[in-house]
Amino acid sequence: MSLLVVGSVAFDAIETPFGSTDKIIGGAATFISLCASYFTKPINLVAVVGGDFPKDKIKMLESHGVNTEGLQIKEDEKSFFWKGKYNNDMNSRDTLITELNVLENFDPIIPESYQDCEYLMLGNLAPQVQRTVIERLKKRPKLIVMDTMNFWMDVALEELMKTLKLVDVVSINDEEARQLSGEYSLVKAARKIHAMGPKYVIIKKGEHGALLFQMNEEDDKIYYAPALPLEEVFDPTGAGDTFAAGFIGYMAQQGTIDFATMSKAVIKGSAMASFCVEKFGTERLENLSSKEIAQRERKFADLIGTVFV
Amino acid sequence: MSLLVVGSVAFDAIETPFGSTDKIIGGAATFISLCASYFTKPINLVAVVGGDFPKDKIKMLESHGVNTEGLQIKEDEKSFFWKGKYNNDMNSRDTLITELNVLENFDPIIPESYQDCEYLMLGNLAPQVQRTVIERLKKRPKLIVMDTMNFWMDVALEELMKTLKLVDVVSINDEEARQLSGEYSLVKAARKIHAMGPKYVIIKKGEHGALLFQMNEEDDKIYYAPALPLEEVFDPTGAGDTFAAGFIGYMAQQGTIDFATMSKAVIKGSAMASFCVEKFGTERLENLSSKEIAQRERKFADLIGTVFV
Repeated sequence: MSLLVVGSVAFDAIETPFGSTDKIIGGAATFISLCASYFTKPINLVAVVGGDFPKDKIKMLESHGVNTEGLQIKEDEKSFFWKGKYNNDMNSRDTLITELNVLENFDPIIPESYQDCEYLMLGNLAPQVQRTVIERLKKRPKLIVMDTMNFWMDVALEELMKTLKLVDVVSINDEEARQLSGEYSLVKAARKIHAMGPKYVIIKKGEHGALLFQMNEEDDKIYYAPALPLEEVFDPTGAGDTFAAGFIGYMAQQGTIDFATMSKAVIKGSAMASFCVEKFGTERLENLSSKEIAQRERKFADLIGTVFV
Repeated sequence: MSLLVVGSVAFDAIETPFGSTDKIIGGAATFISLCASYFTKPINLVAVVGGDFPKDKIKMLESHGVNTEGLQIKEDEKSFFWKGKYNNDMNSRDTLITELNVLENFDPIIPESYQDCEYLMLGNLAPQVQRTVIERLKKRPKLIVMDTMNFWMDVALEELMKTLKLVDVVSINDEEARQLSGEYSLVKAARKIHAMGPKYVIIKKGEHGALLFQMNEEDDKIYYAPALPLEEVFDPTGAGDTFAAGFIGYMAQQGTIDFATMSKAVIKGSAMASFCVEKFGTERLENLSSKEIAQRERKFADLIGTVFV
């Protein structure tokens, strides 16, 4: 089924203990649309880049079935740029440079041809921009998934709360869940975040996997997806985005919205994230085969002794 | 099948953000023999206490099918005592008092009636004492599982390495695995620890679950058991011991030694640990019903979408 993806399409420069890159392509919507393309088509991208963004990378996305009609190209401006450095444990990072550039005044225009989209993935972006996308859709999608980060909790909490009210699923990491809820226990945190709007709460724990919560008055449901234990994590950039991509991509592929399907979807997300961290940027993700993906999903099934994939 | 358990039988005093206790019973072998009794019988205990250890608690263990012939009672001495304080996140703790008392010169005497034991659980204890137990058994048990901790890595590394060579399974936490191996990646850590002797390596990650590794040249096997997401962790003391108890108890119950059985055993261990942390000390563990245990295991099965339990 059709999927609308909004988020940044941008440049990253990354330093890790294993090496560093010059400007390479990154951004939430880049990772999400690329990875979701392995599960569903069409993918309708809404984003903005400057004239400096490489045309061949736009072509690369298109070759994966990503519709770029909603990708605004501001020829005279520069693309969003983030430079960061990962610490030795790869679990924490410092931002060295953030240049908003075209993102500063991003007005997410939805092409008419996107209006029938059934699934909506709001990649990490200013919450007011995420909300504008929802408001500009004439028909509410069947499922709206939102990713966000602590930065917006610090600088735009009120806007974030307004947007949270409108989404079905929110995907955040454990520290962000604790910050947003004021609760240390992730079960309590999920319950409070559920009360803010989303029916489903996904809490990502990096190398410790991810938890999917469906909180009801009568019956809490919790599903746990492990992360694949890896010998090397080469570059974690984009792991959260590719997780979201596998999740929403599989949901759109299946067309059914329930806890069981979402449980499988978090495994698909974890599998995509496990590819992402093996190389810098999008390198590992541009040419995945369906056989590779199936093998990786099999590893997850073995890891938890399950039979569903 | 018969299980021999060696370790401390002792007093603990615990401070947590939720409350504190006076001296209550604790110790690795107390937690292990009590919890393993829900899976297998007989359990043959080898340990030492002072005259101050409450006789009714020894009776309590016996009522669970624990054979205390190998429990030495030094009437004129005092039992081992540990006092600790958990920090607000419950993931770290400070030791306030350690009184070795009877443990200082513990000579683990194996009663003749224990000599046919088929499973051996070496609870956390000085590694030379753990090794003495192995050496005093006339026939090697079918499976030897060893728990240890960072303290022994700091003060008795050489002894620890000698004992490690003799065991089939070692169970340690993530920071200890990193310390012992010098590797940050737990996959690499497990590989190095395997090379020190144990065919199977269990790495406990507290609230993030536990990993079981079987490292072969040709084919690594990894199984992941989540921890149950809890609203409250009341007292983590004994969680690692009860995890080991569920593991070895189930292995002894099943009588089969292979990766599949061990995978189920780590879930059993995780289930027992999830009970342990709900109350202070052994309180939650003294009167578990088989229905409660089955319901708890069902929660783990739901959590990972598996069908085996």
